[in-house]
Amino acid sequence: MADMLYDTVIRNGVIATATDVFKADLAITGETIAAIGATLPPGRREIDATNRLVLPGGVDVHCHIEQLSGGGLMNADSFESATRSAAFGGTTSVISFAAQHRGARLSTVVEDYAALARRGAVIDYGFHLMVANPDQQTVEHDLPALIEAGHRSVKVFMTYDAVQVSDQQLLDVMLAARGAGALVCVHAENHGVLKWMSERLVARGYVLPKFHAVSHPRAAEVEAFHRLIAFSELLDQPIMIFHVSTAEGAAVIRDARGRGVKIFAETCPHYLLMTAQDLDRPGLEGAKWICSPPQRTAADQEALWRALALGDLQVLSSDHAPYRFDSSGKLSAGDNPTFKQMANGMPGLELRQPLLFDAMVSQGRMGLSKFVELTATAPARIYDLPGKGSLAIGADADVAIWNPERRVTLANDLHDNAGYNPFEGRTVTGWPETVLRRGEVIVAEGVINAAPGSGRLLLRPAGEATRPTGRLSAEFDPARNFGADLY
Amino acid sequence: MADMLYDTVIRNGVIATATDVFKADLAITGETIAAIGATLPPGRREIDATNRLVLPGGVDVHCHIEQLSGGGLMNADSFESATRSAAFGGTTSVISFAAQHRGARLSTVVEDYAALARRGAVIDYGFHLMVANPDQQTVEHDLPALIEAGHRSVKVFMTYDAVQVSDQQLLDVMLAARGAGALVCVHAENHGVLKWMSERLVARGYVLPKFHAVSHPRAAEVEAFHRLIAFSELLDQPIMIFHVSTAEGAAVIRDARGRGVKIFAETCPHYLLMTAQDLDRPGLEGAKWICSPPQRTAADQEALWRALALGDLQVLSSDHAPYRFDSSGKLSAGDNPTFKQMANGMPGLELRQPLLFDAMVSQGRMGLSKFVELTATAPARIYDLPGKGSLAIGADADVAIWNPERRVTLANDLHDNAGYNPFEGRTVTGWPETVLRRGEVIVAEGVINAAPGSGRLLLRPAGEATRPTGRLSAEFDPARNFGADLY
Amino acid sequence: MADMLYDTVIRNGVIATATDVFKADLAITGETIAAIGATLPPGRREIDATNRLVLPGGVDVHCHIEQLSGGGLMNADSFESATRSAAFGGTTSVISFAAQHRGARLSTVVEDYAALARRGAVIDYGFHLMVANPDQQTVEHDLPALIEAGHRSVKVFMTYDAVQVSDQQLLDVMLAARGAGALVCVHAENHGVLKWMSERLVARGYVLPKFHAVSHPRAAEVEAFHRLIAFSELLDQPIMIFHVSTAEGAAVIRDARGRGVKIFAETCPHYLLMTAQDLDRPGLEGAKWICSPPQRTAADQEALWRALALGDLQVLSSDHAPYRFDSSGKLSAGDNPTFKQMANGMPGLELRQPLLFDAMVSQGRMGLSKFVELTATAPARIYDLPGKGSLAIGADADVAIWNPERRVTLANDLHDNAGYNPFEGRTVTGWPETVLRRGEVIVAEGVINAAPGSGRLLLRPAGEATRPTGRLSAEFDPARNFGADLY
Amino acid sequence: MADMLYDTVIRNGVIATATDVFKADLAITGETIAAIGATLPPGRREIDATNRLVLPGGVDVHCHIEQLSGGGLMNADSFESATRSAAFGGTTSVISFAAQHRGARLSTVVEDYAALARRGAVIDYGFHLMVANPDQQTVEHDLPALIEAGHRSVKVFMTYDAVQVSDQQLLDVMLAARGAGALVCVHAENHGVLKWMSERLVARGYVLPKFHAVSHPRAAEVEAFHRLIAFSELLDQPIMIFHVSTAEGAAVIRDARGRGVKIFAETCPHYLLMTAQDLDRPGLEGAKWICSPPQRTAADQEALWRALALGDLQVLSSDHAPYRFDSSGKLSAGDNPTFKQMANGMPGLELRQPLLFDAMVSQGRMGLSKFVELTATAPARIYDLPGKGSLAIGADADVAIWNPERRVTLANDLHDNAGYNPFEGRTVTGWPETVLRRGEVIVAEGVINAAPGSGRLLLRPAGEATRPTGRLSAEFDPARNFGADLY
Repeated sequence: MADMLYDTVIRNGVIATATDVFKADLAITGETIAAIGATLPPGRREIDATNRLVLPGGVDVHCHIEQLSGGGLMNADSFESATRSAAFGGTTSVISFAAQHRGARLSTVVEDYAALARRGAVIDYGFHLMVANPDQQTVEHDLPALIEAGHRSVKVFMTYDAVQVSDQQLLDVMLAARGAGALVCVHAENHGVLKWMSERLVARGYVLPKFHAVSHPRAAEVEAFHRLIAFSELLDQPIMIFHVSTAEGAAVIRDARGRGVKIFAETCPHYLLMTAQDLDRPGLEGAKWICSPPQRTAADQEALWRALALGDLQVLSSDHAPYRFDSSGKLSAGDNPTFKQMANGMPGLELRQPLLFDAMVSQGRMGLSKFVELTATAPARIYDLPGKGSLAIGADADVAIWNPERRVTLANDLHDNAGYNPFEGRTVTGWPETVLRRGEVIVAEGVINAAPGSGRLLLRPAGEATRPTGRLSAEFDPARNFGADLY
Repeated sequence: MADMLYDTVIRNGVIATATDVFKADLAITGETIAAIGATLPPGRREIDATNRLVLPGGVDVHCHIEQLSGGGLMNADSFESATRSAAFGGTTSVISFAAQHRGARLSTVVEDYAALARRGAVIDYGFHLMVANPDQQTVEHDLPALIEAGHRSVKVFMTYDAVQVSDQQLLDVMLAARGAGALVCVHAENHGVLKWMSERLVARGYVLPKFHAVSHPRAAEVEAFHRLIAFSELLDQPIMIFHVSTAEGAAVIRDARGRGVKIFAETCPHYLLMTAQDLDRPGLEGAKWICSPPQRTAADQEALWRALALGDLQVLSSDHAPYRFDSSGKLSAGDNPTFKQMANGMPGLELRQPLLFDAMVSQGRMGLSKFVELTATAPARIYDLPGKGSLAIGADADVAIWNPERRVTLANDLHDNAGYNPFEGRTVTGWPETVLRRGEVIVAEGVINAAPGSGRLLLRPAGEATRPTGRLSAEFDPARNFGADLY
Repeated sequence: MADMLYDTVIRNGVIATATDVFKADLAITGETIAAIGATLPPGRREIDATNRLVLPGGVDVHCHIEQLSGGGLMNADSFESATRSAAFGGTTSVISFAAQHRGARLSTVVEDYAALARRGAVIDYGFHLMVANPDQQTVEHDLPALIEAGHRSVKVFMTYDAVQVSDQQLLDVMLAARGAGALVCVHAENHGVLKWMSERLVARGYVLPKFHAVSHPRAAEVEAFHRLIAFSELLDQPIMIFHVSTAEGAAVIRDARGRGVKIFAETCPHYLLMTAQDLDRPGLEGAKWICSPPQRTAADQEALWRALALGDLQVLSSDHAPYRFDSSGKLSAGDNPTFKQMANGMPGLELRQPLLFDAMVSQGRMGLSKFVELTATAPARIYDLPGKGSLAIGADADVAIWNPERRVTLANDLHDNAGYNPFEGRTVTGWPETVLRRGEVIVAEGVINAAPGSGRLLLRPAGEATRPTGRLSAEFDPARNFGADLY
Repeated sequence: MADMLYDTVIRNGVIATATDVFKADLAITGETIAAIGATLPPGRREIDATNRLVLPGGVDVHCHIEQLSGGGLMNADSFESATRSAAFGGTTSVISFAAQHRGARLSTVVEDYAALARRGAVIDYGFHLMVANPDQQTVEHDLPALIEAGHRSVKVFMTYDAVQVSDQQLLDVMLAARGAGALVCVHAENHGVLKWMSERLVARGYVLPKFHAVSHPRAAEVEAFHRLIAFSELLDQPIMIFHVSTAEGAAVIRDARGRGVKIFAETCPHYLLMTAQDLDRPGLEGAKWICSPPQRTAADQEALWRALALGDLQVLSSDHAPYRFDSSGKLSAGDNPTFKQMANGMPGLELRQPLLFDAMVSQGRMGLSKFVELTATAPARIYDLPGKGSLAIGADADVAIWNPERRVTLANDLHDNAGYNPFEGRTVTGWPETVLRRGEVIVAEGVINAAPGSGRLLLRPAGEATRPTGRLSAEFDPARNFGADLY
């Protein structure tokens, strides 16, 4: 039995999966989970988890790291700072963006981002292929090749001058993704509405940060959802709608899912826990909370919670997009900037899980298994991250050990580079105290111990979420279409 | 009582309004209806209407006359030929387009079209202000001035390269219309989808006319309706959706009306009586039936009939857009044209009413009052045409005397200039035999007797249909919007 | 021309139909409208209508007259008092109930009510066949015979112990109506819910009139609508839903109409103009406002107005059900009655039109034509009342001449026998000053001049509203149903 | 390490939970699962599961065992035969009915059924409290006491003469369940419709078994769902809708869940795999397939599969209701019975899981985890069965070892007492070969080895599913309700 000596045993904790919560020990051999049991044999290292929860490491599938924004601003984080921050929050896998800008070749972009991550990341990472330049080279060659190489998600923007794709381009990208087997993720807001509103606001002198929220009408989100869903139905291509912020948006998704459209959707902590009122601060202070779509109302929060409970939304991500509140970031436009000139985005990787644990588990909104499902298991499944998101035998030993009773008042001490904490001052109950990545303790007692570059690239198979439904729209069905075969 | 001698008495007919059907005489003095009664005193001219129906002259609020298409092709009709054709079909008022092209000034465009009409029209006419160039001059000056001068409807295209407006421009036009008091009429199809589909079809050699139908997916209509409705809700601006062709489109309209959005909508005879199969002819023959959106399916026909019955659609128009089936029209692109190169549109002014009378009244689908409502009264009311669309005392004596029993097999003998009849070969029951325009008999016994230019320009007040609901969207309501006042 | 001398000419008024509003004279010969014209020849009697509106007499298709309630209480009115009251309010036709109680034979019931009306009515009247005892004699013999004799509407209650029908009985009545050609009108509330609620309320001492409103949950209305509509779909039998009171109820109707179910619906002034708060008075005073379903909330009022505008509801009736506020009526149960012991109903015949004229026309909610449509034309059409509801040539000369500027503060001076005015103290603008019934002036200058019994029985043909759609449910369609032919 | 010797190790299988599928060993100590691991230490008994799936034992929460039907017929199974049959099909827990008939006292009924089960059951069992006699004793005393004793689900019928409850009684039962903490499960069909239809059918001679399907219109299901949901909303009481059979029914549930009503729902294999055509056999043969609601159409099957995928339905049960096809069962009414006289129900306990495994997993409709969720985990969670439905550490070692490749042609060899197999002749792939109940192998190599009475009564806590939402209807909210406090 000597060969049964586990490398690590986390003992006496309460283990939670998306299905079960039970008291057990968890044993690790090498990088993977070896056993879960009532009383496991000893490990070389023993971690006492008495009165602690043993959860899968969080999976944050929407974060911007070391990325040049559409506006030409480099965000505040390196892969090192961002993933370190994530790890402190109990998150052990991320998908960030290999973000093509116009003029750039997608395959080069992926190489470049991979090089950055290889140098800095302390947790495992994958990439969304962010397409801003869907020319023939991209759509017909690079995109399919990269998808087939394991980058199984594509991101497009329906807004932002610098990166948005037109409707035709969106259809090109969707059909390419369909052919190669990738999920298409979309920032869905109507660009014309946003431009039109912001120009009117600025022209009338409504330039403070709070008017950023006004400049993104609810209708802009709802409209873009409808449009995107129409395209998804036309081509029978699965989509992921990023950062749903409104009740109406969630309802549109529910309707479409009900009639069989293959749609996934996420929301983020700031839509669940903030409102547009959070931007209403003196001076430029509100710029810290500028993100797109903007925070909405308390009624939207309730609708989003319900949509999560009903399964209309399946994923909780951070949309981490860190910019400093200074001349290198939010205020880079110089004196007297308008809200249009302030970078969109907030840091979120580190607090995503603590905020949601508090809101869901400590406040009793949903159970612990649902927390695990929405923040780890479902994201890992939908994006086909191998070995991630669940405490299963053979899975990567990505584990977060939580103290469910620990109360923490959030301070300006995050480990990213944004320099501020948009949730500063709130108190949460429940905190990830110890974090293991592939069997290795990388966070313990407030200290991180992980070498930059120790994170690994996650390549992904073409899973269930990427598969078309097989129900063809009339126009794509040769049998109903005068024989025209369009793909 | 000598002064009671009426100019004309139409005697012994069955009179129908949108509300009532009853046997009576109808008397005319000058240009207007003077009396309706069981046994009226004699008139200078007596018209025997025994066994005949006496209906208001038709009002066709969607027709293209003497207009340069987006593709640069002049349509086949002059105001003279088009309105003559209309008169033969029992129609006594039209609204056609003052169609701006890019580079043109809208006020000049209106003058030009008005000059053409003044020279040729034999029935009364108004203009939709078709905006393709919504620059500052147009939106801030010409458009409001022209609206206030009595052109109370604006037309925009969401598709067609040469004339479409962007989302931002559409919002500009809608807000300008809101300020001045006009209804915004829209050809709503998603441009990107249409281009993308037609490029794929042509690239694969699917170029016959029937593939025109394939190139306009149902989703393109549904999507554009959703987008347009979102804008209408955002700005609280009433809209008219032109030529609804799909069941899903009608359903989207019903939903939006149900939640209080001020939407009007029309459909046309070819969507009720044809399907995409009508385009499936040998060679290029199918080009005769090319129009946009295309004809759909029998199930869509049923859905549209129901939508008319329920009031979700309120208007039946022709969308008359005549092109000859020769090198001056449909086939102007030379040898081996693709469907993309064939002009969109069919002649429709003349047969709109006979086809619908047959389908609604003779075939028993709906009553005579509903026929009057949909083809005359409602269009006149929604577009605020003074004195038109109903046989009321003081109203213009625009009257069509129908023989409800007359069976006519439709032949290639229309009075427009298209040179073909898309409904050739069908048989209808019910025919307008005598037509009066402002008291003057202009059609009788198959002969027209009306001087070119005898039609009159209809200027219109800002009526009920042009008025916003007063329910402001959150973004447009300063009380909910950090005080921002956006219009 | 001597023979052209009209009996009566109403001169210089503004005439309104459901379609048109125009200035004209209106001439009457005998009992019918002879002519409408700009300047008609003189009449034997001339009525000056300068600055007045000339409208069709109102048609109130839901009123209880000289009827024994389900609770065994005779209501306060005779046909004479009720129809006199109606006439003062501009109403010239009613449909009241031939109300069968258990044990009574329906044909006898009709004879009895007809005799009462023949003796007292001063305006024209028809009967709904109210079936409380749908035994074989009733369903198979009397009901079809009476329908075919011209009583083309059947009324059933889904609640009230004494008169309700079971689901099976309701189906029996509906199928009998389908066979003979009648519209089925229903008081649709869930009986079990009402009993259950009222028993709980009374048991806990919540006995004041205001708790009547609580005892009728909104869900009881919504549930019964769903049930009734399910039956209508099953049998393909048109229905009229009486007195819709809730937003949800109106939405259920809209949905069902949208999928093709043939449903008509009405609401009443008290649902548009009162709320449950109106019952909250000291002592038993609130009993005056007890009716079923009860008044609801301001949000429901808005929803009902919108449903009327959209055509989801088509009829505005009074549901006149007069009981005195004394020991002969509302308080007949003796000292300390609970709300369960107070008669349900309010007087409404007289003020239906003035209240709605004020709310719709004077306050600008809807146009004059819509007022005419909802209070006169549509009820007459749906119930196929010959010659009623519109100012058409040959129609009965039932005319109300309104002073649109007259302001009246409503007092306790109604002409029915209830002894109180539930709208006392409100001020309305617009008042019917002169009323003609079949050409005869019966109300003028506040005085009625009509012989009891001068009203006439209205027998009705089987019209459009009574016809099934022809779309059979799966279970009633032998082709889809193993050949079973069920009716 | 000697004390680590497990009692049983199932080695080398592929383990599936509702979340994860992975290769591992599973160890059992005593009655519970002790460990799951990549390579566990040896057990006293080793079971080789190479190439096998290791799944939680099935949980069938809807089956009728040793129960007197509403029609007075004892069903064919004893607890011994029924649970034996279940075990052969991989099911290790059931909830059957403690079925009150009128006149019986509920507490006695539970004792009686518990005695029967204690004597015969070979797997673990719980009881639904089936209430047919909701008198004061039942509602106020026995029902709350039994619920609090651990019978946390109540069953009521909205149809069947002998057992149905009225709407008032249903409300009584629901409020009692709300107070004590139980889920209310309902057979929801409109009784009046069923009676009315069957009487018409029989009267016309449509008496063959296939007319049973006709006698249960789709509308009867839809109607009853609406009614039940209205009651659930009124009282804020969670419900479980049994055996959903129609697309419309599933849609009604989706709508209600979407607006926040707490509804659970199930369907059964025969609604997913059979249609009404299955009843269309010569002579009385079709009686074998009579059940209520009846099987429907292929389109309904598709809708139900989608509803399961979307989470609108959460549970797959058998509705096992076995009657012999002879004079002791289906044909007990003597010669020439009508479909009304044939017992409703089919055997289903044994094949529920094999049929669904084949349909979901082998045919690829859904994944293995979804099969586990719908047939084991979700039923156990919703009904709060302690230690059941998942392979978690500390859970009951109820395990089924499946051969996913084994093809079985279903024969008339079931282990219940019905004497026929309604699925005879179909071939399925995937079979449970070995079954453990609380650690004990009870089925292996086609032989059962379990003592009658070795099954255990499952008492249940008041779990999440039984909790009201806290959103009170207007009528139940004293704050909106004139202060009336109704429960």
